[in-house]
Amino acid sequence: MSPGCPVAAPEYNGLMKNSKYALGLDFGTNSVRALIVDVGSGNEVGTAIFDYPSGKAGILLDPKDANLARQNPADWILGVEKAVPAALAEAKKKVKGFDPAAVVGIGVDTTGSTPLPVDRAGKPLALYKEFKRNLDAQAWLWKDHTAHAEAAEITALAAAERPEYLAKCGGTYSSEWFWSKILHCLRVAPKAASAAFSWVEFADYIPGLLTGVTDPLKMKRSRCAAGHKAMFNAKWGGLPAKAFLAKLDPRLGELRDRLYDRTYTSDVAAGGLTGEWAKKLGLRPGIPVAVGAFDAHLGGVGAGVGTGRFVKIIGTSTCDICVWPAAKRLPDIPGLCGIVDGSVLPGYLGLEAGQSAVGDIFNWFVDVVEPGGPKRGSHAALTRGAAALEPGESGLLALDWHNGNRTVLVDQRLTGLILGLTLHTTPAEIYRALVEATAFGALTIIRRFEEYGVTVRDVVNCGGIAEKNPLVMQIYADVTGLPMRVARSGQTCALGAAMAGAVAAGKRGGGHATFAEAQAAMGGLKRAVFKPVAARHEVYLELYALYRALHDAFGARDWTGNLHHVMKELLAIKDRQRR
Amino acid sequence: MSPGCPVAAPEYNGLMKNSKYALGLDFGTNSVRALIVDVGSGNEVGTAIFDYPSGKAGILLDPKDANLARQNPADWILGVEKAVPAALAEAKKKVKGFDPAAVVGIGVDTTGSTPLPVDRAGKPLALYKEFKRNLDAQAWLWKDHTAHAEAAEITALAAAERPEYLAKCGGTYSSEWFWSKILHCLRVAPKAASAAFSWVEFADYIPGLLTGVTDPLKMKRSRCAAGHKAMFNAKWGGLPAKAFLAKLDPRLGELRDRLYDRTYTSDVAAGGLTGEWAKKLGLRPGIPVAVGAFDAHLGGVGAGVGTGRFVKIIGTSTCDICVWPAAKRLPDIPGLCGIVDGSVLPGYLGLEAGQSAVGDIFNWFVDVVEPGGPKRGSHAALTRGAAALEPGESGLLALDWHNGNRTVLVDQRLTGLILGLTLHTTPAEIYRALVEATAFGALTIIRRFEEYGVTVRDVVNCGGIAEKNPLVMQIYADVTGLPMRVARSGQTCALGAAMAGAVAAGKRGGGHATFAEAQAAMGGLKRAVFKPVAARHEVYLELYALYRALHDAFGARDWTGNLHHVMKELLAIKDRQRR
Repeated sequence: MSPGCPVAAPEYNGLMKNSKYALGLDFGTNSVRALIVDVGSGNEVGTAIFDYPSGKAGILLDPKDANLARQNPADWILGVEKAVPAALAEAKKKVKGFDPAAVVGIGVDTTGSTPLPVDRAGKPLALYKEFKRNLDAQAWLWKDHTAHAEAAEITALAAAERPEYLAKCGGTYSSEWFWSKILHCLRVAPKAASAAFSWVEFADYIPGLLTGVTDPLKMKRSRCAAGHKAMFNAKWGGLPAKAFLAKLDPRLGELRDRLYDRTYTSDVAAGGLTGEWAKKLGLRPGIPVAVGAFDAHLGGVGAGVGTGRFVKIIGTSTCDICVWPAAKRLPDIPGLCGIVDGSVLPGYLGLEAGQSAVGDIFNWFVDVVEPGGPKRGSHAALTRGAAALEPGESGLLALDWHNGNRTVLVDQRLTGLILGLTLHTTPAEIYRALVEATAFGALTIIRRFEEYGVTVRDVVNCGGIAEKNPLVMQIYADVTGLPMRVARSGQTCALGAAMAGAVAAGKRGGGHATFAEAQAAMGGLKRAVFKPVAARHEVYLELYALYRALHDAFGARDWTGNLHHVMKELLAIKDRQRR
Repeated sequence: MSPGCPVAAPEYNGLMKNSKYALGLDFGTNSVRALIVDVGSGNEVGTAIFDYPSGKAGILLDPKDANLARQNPADWILGVEKAVPAALAEAKKKVKGFDPAAVVGIGVDTTGSTPLPVDRAGKPLALYKEFKRNLDAQAWLWKDHTAHAEAAEITALAAAERPEYLAKCGGTYSSEWFWSKILHCLRVAPKAASAAFSWVEFADYIPGLLTGVTDPLKMKRSRCAAGHKAMFNAKWGGLPAKAFLAKLDPRLGELRDRLYDRTYTSDVAAGGLTGEWAKKLGLRPGIPVAVGAFDAHLGGVGAGVGTGRFVKIIGTSTCDICVWPAAKRLPDIPGLCGIVDGSVLPGYLGLEAGQSAVGDIFNWFVDVVEPGGPKRGSHAALTRGAAALEPGESGLLALDWHNGNRTVLVDQRLTGLILGLTLHTTPAEIYRALVEATAFGALTIIRRFEEYGVTVRDVVNCGGIAEKNPLVMQIYADVTGLPMRVARSGQTCALGAAMAGAVAAGKRGGGHATFAEAQAAMGGLKRAVFKPVAARHEVYLELYALYRALHDAFGARDWTGNLHHVMKELLAIKDRQRR
């Protein structure tokens, strides 16, 4: 168990006349959010959301292929045009004398890997009339899985020839990532592929757009996007070797020359806001726009990530972010989604892990299995029932693999399990078992970090579940033995982007010199801390040993053993806990 | 796969003037049923049910001890007095000229082991005023589990000193059985225990009552009850050795002398109906009353059990009955609930197995987990949804151990499991997986029989699920590869008891010479046969291999292996079956 660590209490300094502000732009899967934050106090003074109008909730689908998920870049542009003025308008309402000229910098986070084919000038093909209806010329949204065959091909080639490429991304190159998608495009959509001079990540495109530096060879590319998804690493000279890429497809090798050699962290300005955009948005021209990064990574920054502090962004799935000083040696940690220098904070290795389904599992149980309505089958009712139980009292044990396992097994071909069922098992018991399963999954990730020397002192959680369900937070504390904290902001991604804007502006520009300074001033945690209860933690360690037995028996190729004890021990714990 | 075998079609000969009838008395847990059956045609001409008035639905409970379940023998007596005249009255209404004097014999089946303490004359202590409110002086109902410590003690002693005792009853002596209960009574209730001259089984008591032969030393005891529950076997000279019993408790050793040396099968008359009872019931005095047997065993007879025909009595749990010619060698089959010469049919070894929960699992899912109401969550709605699926299409696999495993593992400390869950898993898929799990459990039992040489040609099912849910029957056929038939009668236990009455009467008494003759005349099957579909059976054999992997991994102490393939293969089968 880790003792609590000192945390800066959220400081509300009130709204001052000479306040400076940063704008965070958070591009999600279905919408973009603009958030205006006081760089001194962290007060969030204006926010607005714009829902992408195209496709289904902003996603272009193909009825013939469930794997396909694309996005129209015109939606993003329109989103900036609509959301920023709306957020400024709200700030004007809320803050007497608020002046948009006091916005000193802009930061951007986006989904990813969401690569977009562009022409020589950096204009998305999708914006040309001839490609408007061509799905392959749109942005390939992070959750597009059309390139699963190409991902397997890349993984196989890397495993054979360049295992070091895989060591930084969990051992498996994903169909969701940059090279898989481009290779698939080359194979199936020659028209779009050959019209594409280069490809840019969503996180690269927006800062390029706002600063007018759209030339693919000149724009400042995101370290975060490149490092996590395009196998960019200084160790092997940036992107994967041309020969490696050419082996997959000669055109992929040629493309490498039209991509990039350098990448940048989000403390760096991609450029200054163009006059045209400044006018459109009502902001000062020339204010710095930070190099972009992925949503979860800037979300980690917004939640206060730092050495020893583990950030969990809990939504339908969960993204875990922590950092490690780049100067200190760290071995490759197997099973992680990525280890990238500067992807979260400059000067630190950004470490990313995740759980493929968390809120999705709870929603599945409530919406699909348990249609009992608000009285019996709602999250609130089931949480009430679950809260009345002690650890182990239900005799149930579940595996949280309803959508596969991202970390540490990196295996989508796994499924959920529940055991310990009796004729008396209730829905509330199952609900609690599902929550506990996600907590055991979280503990498995934390232990993997710790096994490789990355100590976790406490955990900061963000997202709706963290904010709204104290039972989940308490179970996470009791299972992991670590204090669970909740980020003060309900919008840590947008807040992290605003911090990047403030840091890109620098101290002299009215912002902050470093992310640490920005986090101290603009971040913060909610007052409540969920502390582990020793007696419960002890029982959970017993249950976790059984979870690990199942985890390894079903998830590890090389496990050999017997599971005869699992049901017996669960019943013994149940008998004890019911007494 | 076994080919279908010829079956006597149900013969309805019409109701003839000179018909003879047999009366079956079926004493269940909550009520007694009287059934009057035409011995020539099998027509069921009159029936009546009497609910036991005492306790909760006929069961005496102790709010301080959930294990306790007793029964008031006065309820049984009242039950005969009420149900028989009512059944006769119905027969008179239905059959023109019906004469109660045409009833030629009576058969009796009861729950068990349900031992009852009696005095020297065979009168139940419970009928004396001083013991009326003494729970320990009542009948100890089959489902009473107060004697779990004594059962463990008996098992341990037998394992050490007389392993042959255990070999005939699945390797574990149960808390539900004769010696455990009496030993517990000796230990905790000295007043009732010392007042008891002897103990009789429910199945012994009723024939004794009706024939006036209540003397514990003279009454004809049931082979079925003695052999299955009191470790009675000719191989070791009847009941367990006095020295063995005395080691458990000297008083238990002494009791042996006040029990019995001989037992009888149900073709034998326990005696003739007394004049007093004949008058009370409106029957002919002196008609034979067959020696009693347990409900499931006579249920097997009523369903047409015979060599190669396996009977499944499917209810909340399932009882499986089959027979084997006593003259042919049969090794002890590990895991069975019992192997007793003559317990089902004279001249045959009666073989009993069972599943601890079947209908109970489906009811649990519908009533507890899935309160979706008649539209979404009823048995009918879920069955409709389940029927639309192909084997393996859901990707789910379950273990049917929600109430432990009776056969072949003989282990109550096991629990239910379901795996293959995804975010898209539906209640209908889970429902089908639960049905399939019980089918895999059934196949495991059938295979155990076959491994020891007991060939199963076809299966006859009885009980409400068999009659009402053709999907369950079809899945059972597809999983086992055996044709599934359904008994014609909805009351196979009472029908089997009536057959025993007819056989006890004998051919000259207006009944039948043998059970085979009685079954041919009075029994029969429904016309519909659920034949296995080869393509589905093939998929189910693949799934069964995975079920066995789970079964052995969690249920067998000596299993060693890996389960990495289980989820993968389920997904591969799912992908294939969805195509």
